[in-house]
Formats: sequence, structure tokens, C-alpha cells
Amino acid sequence: MSDDVNATIRSLATGVKAASVEMAKASSAVKDAALLAMAEAIEADAAILKAENALDLAAGRAAGLSDALLDRLTLTDARIAGMADGLRQVAALPDPVGAIMSGWTRPNGLRIAKVRVPLGVVVIIYESRPNVTADAAALCIKSGNGVILRGGKEAIRSNVAIWKGLGRGLAAAGLPADAIGLVETTDRAAIGVLCTADDLVDVIIPRGGEGLIRYVVQNATVPVIKHYKGTCHVYVDAAADLEMAERICLNAKCQRPGVCNAMETMLVHEAVAEDFLPRMLARFQEAGVEIRGCERTRQIVPDGVVVATEADWPEEYLDLILAVRVVGSTDEAIRHIATHGSGHTEAIVTTDVREADRFTQGVDSAAVFVNASTRFTDGFEFGLGAEIGISTDKLHARGPMGIEELTTYKFVVHGDGQLRE
Amino acid sequence: MSDDVNATIRSLATGVKAASVEMAKASSAVKDAALLAMAEAIEADAAILKAENALDLAAGRAAGLSDALLDRLTLTDARIAGMADGLRQVAALPDPVGAIMSGWTRPNGLRIAKVRVPLGVVVIIYESRPNVTADAAALCIKSGNGVILRGGKEAIRSNVAIWKGLGRGLAAAGLPADAIGLVETTDRAAIGVLCTADDLVDVIIPRGGEGLIRYVVQNATVPVIKHYKGTCHVYVDAAADLEMAERICLNAKCQRPGVCNAMETMLVHEAVAEDFLPRMLARFQEAGVEIRGCERTRQIVPDGVVVATEADWPEEYLDLILAVRVVGSTDEAIRHIATHGSGHTEAIVTTDVREADRFTQGVDSAAVFVNASTRFTDGFEFGLGAEIGISTDKLHARGPMGIEELTTYKFVVHGDGQLRE
Repeated sequence: MSDDVNATIRSLATGVKAASVEMAKASSAVKDAALLAMAEAIEADAAILKAENALDLAAGRAAGLSDALLDRLTLTDARIAGMADGLRQVAALPDPVGAIMSGWTRPNGLRIAKVRVPLGVVVIIYESRPNVTADAAALCIKSGNGVILRGGKEAIRSNVAIWKGLGRGLAAAGLPADAIGLVETTDRAAIGVLCTADDLVDVIIPRGGEGLIRYVVQNATVPVIKHYKGTCHVYVDAAADLEMAERICLNAKCQRPGVCNAMETMLVHEAVAEDFLPRMLARFQEAGVEIRGCERTRQIVPDGVVVATEADWPEEYLDLILAVRVVGSTDEAIRHIATHGSGHTEAIVTTDVREADRFTQGVDSAAVFVNASTRFTDGFEFGLGAEIGISTDKLHARGPMGIEELTTYKFVVHGDGQLRE
Repeated sequence: MSDDVNATIRSLATGVKAASVEMAKASSAVKDAALLAMAEAIEADAAILKAENALDLAAGRAAGLSDALLDRLTLTDARIAGMADGLRQVAALPDPVGAIMSGWTRPNGLRIAKVRVPLGVVVIIYESRPNVTADAAALCIKSGNGVILRGGKEAIRSNVAIWKGLGRGLAAAGLPADAIGLVETTDRAAIGVLCTADDLVDVIIPRGGEGLIRYVVQNATVPVIKHYKGTCHVYVDAAADLEMAERICLNAKCQRPGVCNAMETMLVHEAVAEDFLPRMLARFQEAGVEIRGCERTRQIVPDGVVVATEADWPEEYLDLILAVRVVGSTDEAIRHIATHGSGHTEAIVTTDVREADRFTQGVDSAAVFVNASTRFTDGFEFGLGAEIGISTDKLHARGPMGIEELTTYKFVVHGDGQLRE
């Protein structure tokens, strides 16, 4: 790594850390005023944002980015308005900081309060969508943190332009613009520096491809919360309402196949497989879904089902592809999920309360649904107001992470001279 | 690393992981029965434990261990009874698993419950005291986890003997003995294997020397909760009740100097330094405490005060040594703590509520006390029932960690066919 990158990034992080001390003390009123001013700045800068974005898009086209990537990268008037709206929505959320999470008095009179406080400095690493720059910054500011943003290199001009507006908004409310830092170099070495800046960074949240996340996990000494892959399952039990199962599976796979809470593998109890699979797979095939089935699936539906290999079971397709397996019991479904799943989201469709309980207890995932689509694992859908990501880790936060999950606590203890005996 | 160590440790962890699935389902009644049976086994094995411990002690003496280390290593009848009592106390605690931490219904009728569940497999790395083998295992079993214990090599025979009794206790209650694993090799490579066993281990809690903890942090891809050093401060404010300050500082330094929540640096406001320091330092000197003072401290108390160097401020002495610094304000005390502290525990002694608030808000440590000794940062003293350690991290758990902190949650969501629009 070049000394330059190291010095630049550590200097950036030092500034954010100093600003984070001010952020931790800022009142809700001031933070909300900043978020509203950030929204206004984004709107005022619309022409600049589109001009910078056009340069990113031109570079992206020249570099041969796919249409899907170019679409994600594009800032339209509607998307700019969406960023501003997002900032205003976060301003309207309740402030988590300062909440007394619990408190009690000890026999010796010590009064213990567990008080919610910001984490400090949060690093968010993300990919092509430039609106994440505003969304992620908003959540970190609301929760009283400093934040270091590191977006994808293909969006660098758009991200810098958005970031400048956010800084103006902070300053307008009397908060330090340094509370939001942005990595302006596209050198990947910057991530390595942030991963080991234990003295300056409190947590790293990598969002994006598996390769990026593995790189961060391998290299980080700073704590990491992983927004990892979602190999989500729907299990259609022997006692399922098969009409409901059809609607749920279709929704879980097809409503938006490119996201982490979409179904990737459908498990079907053998007792209903012959009834359910022909009509379900016909609907999937109508919807353009490629089916990769186990041997029993292919016996029941011989036409148009590709052979599933062992490599299919853990796969996150993020596409109109579905793995299908017939299982002998709820326990077999649970074992399949334990072996091949990613701990993100699984669902059972059943009318039998015993099987529902067996499944919700036996499956070790962030979210376990009974009779609903996996697509609901999402901060907005859970009512958390907004989300910074979906944790597939078990520590600190699991599943959809809102602003509360960007906080920690400290114990504030009042006494009147108590001594330890 | 030898392939042997890798294979042995991964095989051990695979067994613990399989057992942890059973532990997660075990009822409170069964887990408590196991803890009571473990207590009985420890008592029944007292003679064996002492015989194995005598071999450890002989090897330790031959290896030239210090008297303090040999003392920590020694199992007496009282310490064996203490282990058994500890197991029974943990059995008497409420079971955290299965608690519904919060729950709500969404506008579309989805019923969301945030349910407390075990973490899975917990690795505890500790040093010479063999009783940690029983204490740590008890907390992990109560919280429904599997646990892998890796104690100090000087206590290996004692630890293996204790562990065998614990396994008999589990089996007596019908639980898998494999739920408690112990690393029998003293090869340090075992730690490296555990640190990167992301597929088998959910969290590593290293307790012990700074070198060990740094090694784990540097090498781990598995999440780590650090039980790090305690460079704890007491700040005697201008508005302090100086009699109370004297009692608190004496208690914080001398009641048990070798532990992480003992005071290491005393900060004194300049307005009271001339009144306070002479009598306070006299009391410390009577108690055999070596004083390392800043220049102003040495001006006020010229006799017997060593010059403090920059290296003294972050130092965790764990001994009858105290750094002393005169400061100009609460804010200067806060800055000193931010620069040199370890984020463990700090205290202010003051009668002025504004300074107390300034201190509790401005200090970013796991525990912040007003008018009480730092020595109270402890799971038992906080009323958590027992502790697995004191986290100086900000993620997942901060400060004293009890059995709740050995759990995570999952979202269990019930619907009646909801689809994402």
C-alpha cells in the first residue's frame, strides 16, 4: 500500500473521529435541522448532481458496464427527490440516543442506568448506487455517529457531489461537516487502512459482493457487521394451504429476484409434492424462472427442469433461477437449511401449528416466517423506519438494522460514596 | 501449524456445534438439572481434582512460575466448593433463552416477535485460574450455547479433570457431553484454528494478557468480544466532597489492585489539589502505593513522588502504583481519559450536578460512576448474577457481560399469506 493512501485515509478518519465527539453531544433538534438542511442542499444541487453523474455514466459506458449496473448508477430527478425525501424521513424518526434502556438500584444504593449512546465512527462500504451515500449518512447522523463512506469507484463523481451537499447541510445546522467523511480515492488500499484503524473506527459495515465482504472479514481487526448473502428458503409443508404456498413462493421468487431476501431454494414435503410441484413449476416457468430440481422433482415434473447439483443448494442466484428439492419432513428441511443456508431468511407454509413451531425453533436464521413471503425481511417492512443493512451476523445486530442498531450503551452509575467491601 | 492440530481442533468444534443445536432446544429445567449435576460431579471429584492440580503445581514450580501465579493455579477444598456453588448459583438464575424481547404487529397483519436465542458456539480463552473452566462453562450452558474452553497450559491437568466432571453432569441430565469442549493440546496453534473457524464458531471471548488478546484480534475472522485492559480513572472535581474522594480513591486503588476495575490514574482539579493531594498521597504512601506524579503534583507533594512520564498515562499497572495528574477542568479530565484511557471504567467525585452530567456525558467508557468506586464494574456488583467477562468493545456487549450477553435474537414472524407488493 502506498504511504499516501495510508496518510490520506488516517487523516480523514481522524477528522471524522473528532467530529463524532461533537455529534454524540448534539441534540435531536440540531441533528434533525441538519438532516432537513441536507435534503435542501441535495435538491438545490440537482443540476450539479446530474452533470457529475453523467460523467460517471459516460465512464461506465466506456468501461463496458452492464445495462443493469448503469441503471443502478443513474441519478434521475425522481431519484434525487427520493434521496431528499429519505433524509426528511430519517429526520422524522425518534432519536435513539440518550434513551435509558433499563435501570435499577442495587441493595447498596448504587443507581445503575443503561444509557443508549452512539457507536462513534461507522464505516460503510457499498457499491454502485449513489443514493446510498445520502441514505447511509442520514442514518449515521441521526444516531449521533461520525461516518466514513466508501462507495463504488464507478459512482465516485456522483458520490463526491452528493457528499458536498451533505456537508453543507451539517454546517448550516452548526454541526461539523467532517462528521461525514468520504473516501475520494478509488484505490482499494483505502479499505485495508480502514479495516485496521482500531484507534479511529468503531465498526465497518460492508455491503455488496461476497468478494468485498470476504476481503473485509479477512483483513479487519476493527469489528465488522456483515451484510452477507441471502440464500433464502421457503418450505412447503405437508399441511400447507397449497394455494397460499403458490402465492407466497411466486412472490418470494419473482417480485424482485435480484435482492437478498428473495427465495433461492424451494423445499417441498414429499406428501404434497405430486400435487403441488406441477402447478407451481408451471407458474414459475410462465414467469420465466429456470428450475433446477432434485431427482424427485424431475421425476414429478420431467419437462424443463434442469438437474440441480450440490453447488446449487448454497447458491444465491439473485436472478430468475430457483433450486427445488423434495424433502421427507420438516426436520429434513431444517437440516437442509442448516447445511446450505446463509442464516438470512426462511419461511414455512403450513396450517399445522406444531410444524410451524418446529420450524421457527429449529431454523437458526435472522428472520423466520410462518405463512408469509421472505421478501418482508427489510427495515421498512419491519417498521424500523429505515435500514442501514441486513445483518447475517449474530453479534450486536441480526436481521434488518435500523438506527438503534447504530448505537451501543454505557452504564451510568450514581452513588453517594459507595465503596467495594 | 501442524495438520494434526487443525484436524483435532476442527473435529472438537464440529462436535460442539452439533451439541449446541441440542442445547438451543433444551428446556430451562433440563439445563438447570445439568448444572446441579455438574456441581455434584465437581464435589465428588474433589480428590482427583486436587491430585491433578498437584501435578500442575509441581510442573509450575519446576518451570519457575511466580508465587502469585502458583496461588491462582491452586485448587483448595474451598475453591472446589466455590466452583460447585457457582454452578448452583447459575442454575438459580432466570433463563434468558426464549424471552420475547419485543414484538409488534404491522399494518398488513404480520406479527413480528424478537425472540432471544443462544449465540451457538462460544470460545472462551483464559489463563491460569482453573475455576474459570467451571464458571465459564456454566454461563454458556445456562444460555443454551455450546462452549469451547481453552485455558492456560499451566493448568491443563486441572482443567481436564474439571471438564470431565462437567461432561458427566451434562450426560446425567440427558444433554450431550460434547456441548462443553476443552482444548487438550497446549499448542498455541489451536487458538489460530479457532479464530478462523467461521463455519463452526460464533464468537471468541479472549480473557487474559494484552498479548493474547492482540493475537486473537489480529488473527480472527470470527467475531471477537474483547475483555481488554482497564486503565481506570477517578477524577476529583473542584466541587468534590474531599473526605468522600479520599475514601473512594483509596478503595478504587487498594481494595484489590490486581484487577481490571482498579484505579490506575487519579486526576485532581487544580482548585482542590493543594488541599487534597498532601493528605491523599500520605494515605496512599501508608498503604504502600508508589506515586508517579505530574509536575504540579510533585510541586505540591515533593517527597516520595516519582516523575510520571508519558508512558505512565495509558499504563495498566495492576499493582500498588498510581499515576496522578492535576487538571484545570472537567473537560481537561475528559480529554485526558479520551487520550489515555481504555474505555473500561471512570469515576468523578463531585457535589456539582453540572460537572457530574458533563463527565457522564463526555466520557466514552463502558461504565461511568458519580461518587462511587470504580471497583463496582463487575457482573455480580451490577446485579447481573454472574459475569463471563467485562467487554471493552462497543459492539454486542459493553461492560459486565452476564448470560443475556451470551445470547442473540431472531425475528419470528407470523402471517396469514402476506405478499410483498
